[in-house]
Amino acid sequence: MSSAKARVQAVKQHLSPEEERALAVSPVESMKEERNKAAFDIRAMTYLLDGGKSATLVRERMMLELERDQVFRMNDFHDLTKDQLRERTMEKFRSLLHHLTNESVNTFRKRMEVVSLVDPGFWTRFGVHYGLFFGALQGSATPGQFSYWASKGAVSLNGMIGCFAMTEIGHGSNVAGVETTATFDEASDQFVIHSPTITATKWWIGGAAHTATHAVVFAQLLVGGKRYGVKSFVVPLRDPNDYSLLAGVNIGDIGKKMGRDGIDNGWITFTNVRIPRSYMLMKHTKVSRSGQVKEPKLQQLTYGALLQGRAAMVVDSGNVAKKALTIAVRYAAVRRQFATKANQGVETKLLDYPIHQRRLMPLLAQAFAMHFTGTEMMEMYLTMMDQLESASPDDADLQQVMENLKETHATSAGLKAFCTWNCLNTIEQCRQACGGHGYSAYTGLAGMYQDFAVHCTWEGDNTILTLQAGRYLISSYREAQEGKKLGSGVAYLNNLNQLIGKKCSVKNVEEIVSVQVITEAWDVVCANAVQQAAEEFDGCVKRGVDVDEAYEQCSQSRLYAAKLHSYGYLFKRFVDGISKASEDLRKVLIDVCYLYGLYTIEDNAGAFLQYEYFSPAQISFIRSKVNGLCKIVRDQAIPLVDAFNYSDYIVNSPLGRKDGDVYVHYFAQVKQQNPPKEHPYFDRLIKPLIHRKANEDDLDEDEEGGLEDEDEEEDAE
Amino acid sequence: MSSAKARVQAVKQHLSPEEERALAVSPVESMKEERNKAAFDIRAMTYLLDGGKSATLVRERMMLELERDQVFRMNDFHDLTKDQLRERTMEKFRSLLHHLTNESVNTFRKRMEVVSLVDPGFWTRFGVHYGLFFGALQGSATPGQFSYWASKGAVSLNGMIGCFAMTEIGHGSNVAGVETTATFDEASDQFVIHSPTITATKWWIGGAAHTATHAVVFAQLLVGGKRYGVKSFVVPLRDPNDYSLLAGVNIGDIGKKMGRDGIDNGWITFTNVRIPRSYMLMKHTKVSRSGQVKEPKLQQLTYGALLQGRAAMVVDSGNVAKKALTIAVRYAAVRRQFATKANQGVETKLLDYPIHQRRLMPLLAQAFAMHFTGTEMMEMYLTMMDQLESASPDDADLQQVMENLKETHATSAGLKAFCTWNCLNTIEQCRQACGGHGYSAYTGLAGMYQDFAVHCTWEGDNTILTLQAGRYLISSYREAQEGKKLGSGVAYLNNLNQLIGKKCSVKNVEEIVSVQVITEAWDVVCANAVQQAAEEFDGCVKRGVDVDEAYEQCSQSRLYAAKLHSYGYLFKRFVDGISKASEDLRKVLIDVCYLYGLYTIEDNAGAFLQYEYFSPAQISFIRSKVNGLCKIVRDQAIPLVDAFNYSDYIVNSPLGRKDGDVYVHYFAQVKQQNPPKEHPYFDRLIKPLIHRKANEDDLDEDEEGGLEDEDEEEDAE
Repeated sequence: MSSAKARVQAVKQHLSPEEERALAVSPVESMKEERNKAAFDIRAMTYLLDGGKSATLVRERMMLELERDQVFRMNDFHDLTKDQLRERTMEKFRSLLHHLTNESVNTFRKRMEVVSLVDPGFWTRFGVHYGLFFGALQGSATPGQFSYWASKGAVSLNGMIGCFAMTEIGHGSNVAGVETTATFDEASDQFVIHSPTITATKWWIGGAAHTATHAVVFAQLLVGGKRYGVKSFVVPLRDPNDYSLLAGVNIGDIGKKMGRDGIDNGWITFTNVRIPRSYMLMKHTKVSRSGQVKEPKLQQLTYGALLQGRAAMVVDSGNVAKKALTIAVRYAAVRRQFATKANQGVETKLLDYPIHQRRLMPLLAQAFAMHFTGTEMMEMYLTMMDQLESASPDDADLQQVMENLKETHATSAGLKAFCTWNCLNTIEQCRQACGGHGYSAYTGLAGMYQDFAVHCTWEGDNTILTLQAGRYLISSYREAQEGKKLGSGVAYLNNLNQLIGKKCSVKNVEEIVSVQVITEAWDVVCANAVQQAAEEFDGCVKRGVDVDEAYEQCSQSRLYAAKLHSYGYLFKRFVDGISKASEDLRKVLIDVCYLYGLYTIEDNAGAFLQYEYFSPAQISFIRSKVNGLCKIVRDQAIPLVDAFNYSDYIVNSPLGRKDGDVYVHYFAQVKQQNPPKEHPYFDRLIKPLIHRKANEDDLDEDEEGGLEDEDEEEDAE
Repeated sequence: MSSAKARVQAVKQHLSPEEERALAVSPVESMKEERNKAAFDIRAMTYLLDGGKSATLVRERMMLELERDQVFRMNDFHDLTKDQLRERTMEKFRSLLHHLTNESVNTFRKRMEVVSLVDPGFWTRFGVHYGLFFGALQGSATPGQFSYWASKGAVSLNGMIGCFAMTEIGHGSNVAGVETTATFDEASDQFVIHSPTITATKWWIGGAAHTATHAVVFAQLLVGGKRYGVKSFVVPLRDPNDYSLLAGVNIGDIGKKMGRDGIDNGWITFTNVRIPRSYMLMKHTKVSRSGQVKEPKLQQLTYGALLQGRAAMVVDSGNVAKKALTIAVRYAAVRRQFATKANQGVETKLLDYPIHQRRLMPLLAQAFAMHFTGTEMMEMYLTMMDQLESASPDDADLQQVMENLKETHATSAGLKAFCTWNCLNTIEQCRQACGGHGYSAYTGLAGMYQDFAVHCTWEGDNTILTLQAGRYLISSYREAQEGKKLGSGVAYLNNLNQLIGKKCSVKNVEEIVSVQVITEAWDVVCANAVQQAAEEFDGCVKRGVDVDEAYEQCSQSRLYAAKLHSYGYLFKRFVDGISKASEDLRKVLIDVCYLYGLYTIEDNAGAFLQYEYFSPAQISFIRSKVNGLCKIVRDQAIPLVDAFNYSDYIVNSPLGRKDGDVYVHYFAQVKQQNPPKEHPYFDRLIKPLIHRKANEDDLDEDEEGGLEDEDEEEDAE
């Protein structure tokens, strides 16, 4: 007997039948009942996820600090117009700047992770300066240039705010194709920045509409009539004293978007705008006073900083998925639907329906996989950047650094794509799992979808990134064939001979449920899929197709290989993450991990059957095992989302309240945000409609009328 | 050589190199080039899709009439606030009422289809009265009651507007669980309508916040202390003269939603609201003056009208998918990205990338499948309703009518679920296929997603509908086992012995590409999946699980069977649709149909391999064949979306313009909607930020600070 039922029985004699029923279906009681099922120390799980107790304490302090900061109030957020949202977002700058001043870069990065969960639009708008503009200075300015812009306020915002003008209305993923020109004018020692066509209009530039005084502009470098490709230039846009536009600069507002309306995205055109030569960022390519162009040895080294956004988005995918699941799982624990005879008329919790477990538990498992993967991805990125910054071009270990850069690039590309897709899908599935209430703005999932959706197309369009990841797999495959020892993420390609054609060799199907078998299963299908893509590519090349076109022709196979590889990679990172857990936690997490592994196998059953690693009978077993694991994980679902440790303020959804009191708070929020008021258009629109003269365009009895050609008045009777 | 290239070469001698390049990449030229590839008569295709030339002419007239109707202007639509949108939506009532008065019901239904494409929020708000409220009167009122409410204005809106108060904040899919009570008070001959708890609050009621004077309220009928289940009652809400709320009625605004903000959804509570006994809709259940309750013989007959919404949503799914694809395919025909050496620096059209073909062509094929299926679904519904209305309870053919009702119910349930899911996915894929520009509100896909998303959870939550469809498959399976001849949609279950275990027997893999093999393939996997679900169900029952619980336990298998069945069903309807086409059109459509069939097989390869209909080698062939078909269909992609025949007004996206001049119109729209204006918050927020005193919270040199505990002033230097 469940504890809530027991409690109901204990107080039964004091309750009327109505009170008794009310207690049995009480959302708050239902939530307590679920929380009591915890088979592990929730607090210890939080420490594991956060990376230790002190990290948890820091995060909790940040959540509290945001909650008490009036400009970060969230209760009215969904009802702000675009213009109000823009202004509210700007208000937050001062507040975050205060923290930036007072804490370490690492601590501040953690704070920004929390901010991203609360207000992703602000996160981006603030990040435009500190991530993109400032990052461009760090990555591409000479030390002297960096000091100069720092002295102008690039560090403190005291005097200037930057934006990042890369994309154009006609040019996105292909940065090399931007049309804006930067022509060196030797006579004046200046560059002339110019937008020659409509398609050259800088577009989507965050911060351009209202915020920025300066932009890092990506433009085609033209010196002495020769093109040197796309370089970056600091271009002043506005007078910092009154924000009037500088001569030749035209800027407009991009307007309404799907989400993140707090960002003032703008368009910019340049009409022969002149800047000093020294405003070109010259850490890599240099243009001398006399127009000599000196290009860098290793162009690739300039791209490292661009990977930060991708790594951050992998982390964000895990975090946002956790937030969405907190809402949907908690709601499912208290929402009841359809009574069974067995339960004496008390409706069943959504969470008790096998189909609802199927909808949410695999996504919960995936959120854990993305969490652990995000943590590792960020570490990988930071380590690589450390190496990159300390390596000099003549270092003997530069080769190794370049290898790491390549691996980090490809790994972050694939993970950014699949994790953002997975997270977007998680949000939508969670929204639908809340039924009709998921469509309300106040329950949070709708806005979360609208805000998150942009992750799939910016900072590298997902499809293009998957193809880059696939290309890396093909080249790794080729290197492995040539006997090279590969990095850990693709090391399985060194064992191709053992993997290709391998079948699952368990004697008893139950043995499939093991880290070893699931890992091997992924390695086998990934090896097969990579080999197939590589052979398709080789086949094209052998038929005389040029290399670029050959890559295009095998793009579907590349994408497929990258997908399977990324799923296998996520599983392995989940296993790594668990390895650090205590016995108590591992016991719970291993089921979650098995669920993730087996669910993704089931979901990609076509590949496992295609490459004949699993037999149809084994896949049948996996299918039923996934049902079983959903049921097991379901019992720990509330403790697991509790372990994510997001405060009610962060969750910002009445359906995701920790206490389970969903209806009271949902109703209260709807009433608070929509107080009674005068009917806005009764006199103007409704009264004339429902009190019109009786003979005025009433519906004719003859519905088959065809009266269009007759005078309306004549039609009246 | 392509025709655009030829044209470029023909005028080459008159052009400068810049002009030459501009012509080669001109979006308008690119679009012409694509349109010139048409291998069929586009106009004839439109007639086929619309169901004949006269239907096309009617539809074109309606598009034009909407476009010239000022209240239906769309240019500013994405920038309206919720309040403005609500008011604009109400303005449209008068306009549509005019048409309703002047044309037949069938013509008006077609008009509403067009309206739904332009402004789905209005479509719903208008539909709340005419579909739901009026539909409830038609379905549940006695003839006398119907005349009474018609005389009050229920037909003409002259005097009243209705809404439909079924769902409650705590009760959605389980209508039988609503808590609102309607207690018969014999003394006064009245019903007392009452909301006993917070969870009994009527919720999501479209039209309640601002529009309706009356509601059809679903409430538990209580007579003489006995419950008779949920019945419907007309309850006056407001005084039609000033829209003040009647005593005991409390109504509030539900507020902001994910989309369709033109609908004034509201909540309603009733506090002992009294209505005459005759306001209960008594076509089926009757309560006499003395409190005698007479229940109907066939409860199911009351549900027929509820299927109208589902059938309409299947049609809407096809239409909206066609609109989304018009945008994404046209944009892909003119958007260029990455230059190849082969093409002398001219960037490649998105549509020429195999991966982009893979993203859009299968969805285009699916849109055709949904289109033909929607047409058949609506016919099936209308036929069934005719039969239902003409059948008397004592008719000998009532049994057949009931069978048809059951089949229509299950078919519409499955199709509503999978078609709305498919359409929502299509919109999102189209949005992402437009890259960054898909995130702009003005390009239309973002709003389309937000508006459409609700289709997945209302009028029957999709997951619950799939389970109903699955339940029907299991019962059909059992009936087939008992020797009963099944209706056409599930007729394959009569051939179970031939289908189970059947393998694809083609000698040459190329033979797979045929209607016969693809149909057989679907029949085989569907038969297997249905059998598996049925056996799982039987197994539960044999183990003593009660029937309802047994259905829950096999819910995942039911969903899986329903999914495969629905996909197979869509393929067959596509084949039916083509059968009516001329030879010229059939030649093009058959490739689209093969693409749909083979792509869905590839996408569900797990099932085809699991049940061993196809071998791994055959699946490999199908995979590469899908690539080939994508390439073939790609050449006809622009003519095919042209055949959908949506005017630029209907498409309402600069990226989906027929002339291909996307950048000019996109830029123009952004500028028109966001004209230059004074900086809204420079003085209040930005000036104090970037011109603060030099020593005021500047970033400390020591970034590792840990200064949180110190006074901010002391930190300054």
